[in-house]
Order: sequence, then structure tokens, then C-alpha cells
Amino acid sequence: MTSYGLSKIVSLPYAQAVAAITAALKTQGFGVLTSIDVRETLRQKIGAEFRPYIILGACNPHLAHRALQAEDEIGLLLPCNAIVYDNGDGSSSISLLDPAQMMSFTGNPALEPIAAEARRLLQAALDAVA
Amino acid sequence: MTSYGLSKIVSLPYAQAVAAITAALKTQGFGVLTSIDVRETLRQKIGAEFRPYIILGACNPHLAHRALQAEDEIGLLLPCNAIVYDNGDGSSSISLLDPAQMMSFTGNPALEPIAAEARRLLQAALDAVA
Repeated sequence: MTSYGLSKIVSLPYAQAVAAITAALKTQGFGVLTSIDVRETLRQKIGAEFRPYIILGACNPHLAHRALQAEDEIGLLLPCNAIVYDNGDGSSSISLLDPAQMMSFTGNPALEPIAAEARRLLQAALDAVA
Repeated sequence: MTSYGLSKIVSLPYAQAVAAITAALKTQGFGVLTSIDVRETLRQKIGAEFRPYIILGACNPHLAHRALQAEDEIGLLLPCNAIVYDNGDGSSSISLLDPAQMMSFTGNPALEPIAAEARRLLQAALDAVA
């Protein structure tokens, strides 16, 4: 769907899709450290209506630690975002930020194997959501 | 310091630097929605020692709303990260993710003016920290 995400559409209602990708990420060693309810945030801050949409910040601490040792500023690109939004037809879209694309951004070859491993684990998490 | 961040070193201890950039972001319309204490997270999750380092997720709801209307998947690149870390010599490093660089990643020209405005505001926040 984009060049920067690993994406799929699932036949799950929004809340179930959020629970499913959260559990799948955990299985691959990625804990969800942050959560932004976009709909609620936009409603509260500016009174705007938006569809159900969440941004989860997922982090594998071993990979994050390696990345931080390889590049001081890499926290700018952490954690790895997962988004889920309601398509309005009973299905939901799930996308994970592609770490290989993000790390290529840095031009630091020491990050490449870390990003490749993160990508493999994130793709496995996405594949595990039915 | 990197191609993807707006950065400066400030003569402030870590905790004061975190407070200063948080206040400066707020002045420019960016609320801090998420906060990851990297040192504490690495200690708790994998028992690793790391310097004081925080990742703040900053969001300007008006700009975020416009970006989300222009591209469904843009939540993968939101919020805009600000990092602060302790240089160990009484100074701290502050960096903000450059939204213009990030949005160029998407190849969506509708995001360009939004990213340019975000960049201007974030640069003003960084400039305001002494």
C-alpha cells in the first residue's frame, strides 16, 4: 500500500485487529510501549471527527539496544510504529513501519543487519494475524 | 549531526533539557503525547545499562489531521519524535525528527506543505532552547 510500510487488510473488526497485532508483536519480541488513539486525540484537541485509528509504538529491546549503540540519534526513528484503522466495512487495515526502509535513511551500514532482523520479525507478526 | 534530524547541543543538564524542549514544543503547538525513558526501559527489559535518553512523541493536532487526510498510512510516520540524551559532560543533545525528510519518503506531494510548516515550527522550538 505504501513504500514505507508492511501492510495488510484483515477481516477483523477494529478492536480485534488491534488486539491481534499487539499479541503477534509480543510473540516476536516487540512490546508495545506507546499507544495513541488518533480518533480520541483529534476529538479532544481540535474537535475533529476521524475514523477509529491507533498508532502503537512497538519496541524489541535487544534490537533497539543494538541500534542505539550503532547510532546515537537512532532514537529519532524508534520505536517502530504499527497502525490499525477501521475501513468502515467490517475489515481493518494493519501496517507496520518497514525498518529496512527507515534505516536506509540513515546511511549507516552498521544498522542494516539490525533493520533486516527487525523487518523479518515484524513481517512474521503481520503474517500471524489471520 | 544527521541528515534526518534537526539537532543541537545545549549547556543544560539532561532533566532541564527535557523540560525545556517540552515547553518549547508546546509553545509551537506540539503536545507531547508519548514518552519513552530509554535508559529505564533497557534496564527493566534486558538489564542493560545506558545513558539518560528519552524519546518524546510530539504532535501538532492540526497538522497531523491534515496529514492523515492527505494519506491514510501517514500514522506510520507520526508523531514527530524529539530525543534528548545526556552527553556526560553537563551538556545535553536535543534532536527533532525532520518532517520534511520524513514526508519526502512518502512521495506524496500533498504532504509537502504540511511537512514544511511542521519543520518551520519544530526549528523554532529548537531555536528557543538556549
